[in-house]
Amino acid sequence: MILADVIGTVVAPVQVPELEGRTHLIIQPVSPTGERAGSHRVAIDTVGAGVGDRVLVVDEGNSTRQVLCDPHAGLRTVIVGFVDSVHLGTQTVYDHREPVS
Amino acid sequence: MILADVIGTVVAPVQVPELEGRTHLIIQPVSPTGERAGSHRVAIDTVGAGVGDRVLVVDEGNSTRQVLCDPHAGLRTVIVGFVDSVHLGTQTVYDHREPVS
Amino acid sequence: MILADVIGTVVAPVQVPELEGRTHLIIQPVSPTGERAGSHRVAIDTVGAGVGDRVLVVDEGNSTRQVLCDPHAGLRTVIVGFVDSVHLGTQTVYDHREPVS
Amino acid sequence: MILADVIGTVVAPVQVPELEGRTHLIIQPVSPTGERAGSHRVAIDTVGAGVGDRVLVVDEGNSTRQVLCDPHAGLRTVIVGFVDSVHLGTQTVYDHREPVS
Amino acid sequence: MILADVIGTVVAPVQVPELEGRTHLIIQPVSPTGERAGSHRVAIDTVGAGVGDRVLVVDEGNSTRQVLCDPHAGLRTVIVGFVDSVHLGTQTVYDHREPVS
Repeated sequence: MILADVIGTVVAPVQVPELEGRTHLIIQPVSPTGERAGSHRVAIDTVGAGVGDRVLVVDEGNSTRQVLCDPHAGLRTVIVGFVDSVHLGTQTVYDHREPVS
Repeated sequence: MILADVIGTVVAPVQVPELEGRTHLIIQPVSPTGERAGSHRVAIDTVGAGVGDRVLVVDEGNSTRQVLCDPHAGLRTVIVGFVDSVHLGTQTVYDHREPVS
Repeated sequence: MILADVIGTVVAPVQVPELEGRTHLIIQPVSPTGERAGSHRVAIDTVGAGVGDRVLVVDEGNSTRQVLCDPHAGLRTVIVGFVDSVHLGTQTVYDHREPVS
Repeated sequence: MILADVIGTVVAPVQVPELEGRTHLIIQPVSPTGERAGSHRVAIDTVGAGVGDRVLVVDEGNSTRQVLCDPHAGLRTVIVGFVDSVHLGTQTVYDHREPVS
Repeated sequence: MILADVIGTVVAPVQVPELEGRTHLIIQPVSPTGERAGSHRVAIDTVGAGVGDRVLVVDEGNSTRQVLCDPHAGLRTVIVGFVDSVHLGTQTVYDHREPVS
């Protein structure tokens, strides 16, 4: 799993049944302290996330299908939760109640 | 999933049954704002895409098989939809009705 | 499998059943001699590891599900053991009884 | 899938049943225009390819097993076809009837 | 599959049944001519390899399970054979009967 920020959306009428009607969100993987860490990806949302949220993302095809309880979902990257806080050792490096700079 | 531009084609008479007769398209992964993002790959087309189209691509073996509804397809990278528009925050950074520079 | 140091924790109320109540640990992959080797990831703990431990990590969705004996766990990165010592040729380059610098 | 050139062979008596008697070829992934693109890998041949051929390669464990029609094949990288020609836009950038420089 | 040199060992008492009692070897992926190619990994041995051997490695969770004939093995990287020789074109670039420099 990786940490990521939701930074945008993709409008793409996909004709594959499992993908129809799902929101495509652009995520930016980040390090624990919030720096960019790797390339943008397009993820499926399962928790109601939107632009500005920091989220926990599963990025693997098989796992993704399990999360959706749908063995036929042709997906790879899924948002599975909101991040409340991140801690390195005893230090809090992210708290969602404080705005992200 | 990733965003990509279709930039070419590969002619390769593949004798594996699931691949025969399918179009092999060369795709260039791109960032939300259209910059190159990673290496070219050869993808299978499922939506009638051609050179010049921006598309949404699933890049994983198992997921690909599900998209094709064919558990024996020996594939990895499949185009699953055309991209209509891409948005970062409140800004539209790609609209397929405007020509790609 | 990879070697990694546990360096932090993520608090994220995940609503996917298999992930609820599990500890999310931030791991830093390391080389045999302890240098950083690759990006941070968020891992699931199965052995009671905590910040400061050097651990052995399986980083793949299907394998992860097997480790948890749960075919529906939507995970990718799992801590499977504590590292006691690491040897390169005949030289001991890590011993957990000596503090990590 | 990726494009690659066959550049060598590996002799390795593998005791895993599915791998015995198969040819291990060293492949160099290439871009559409023939430049090196990524690291060498060792691939299994299914089409009778040899040193000097440009080929289409599936590089993923599950897909590979499907190509070989053998769910127990412990493989990852398989050559599935010879490349006849590669086109970028309207330009032909590779034709196997012309020698590779 | 990749070529790699066995360069060390990891002592880690793993409580996952499939991993107990197996040797954890540190491998260094190498190019056909023996240069380092990528990061160290921890692999499971199935052929009796030791420090100093050049080996053929399958690096993928599902394939690994097949090699071990054990669908529950939570592994990713497995040594499947010793390398006798490596050839680029008509040139022999590695022969295990000659010591590695």
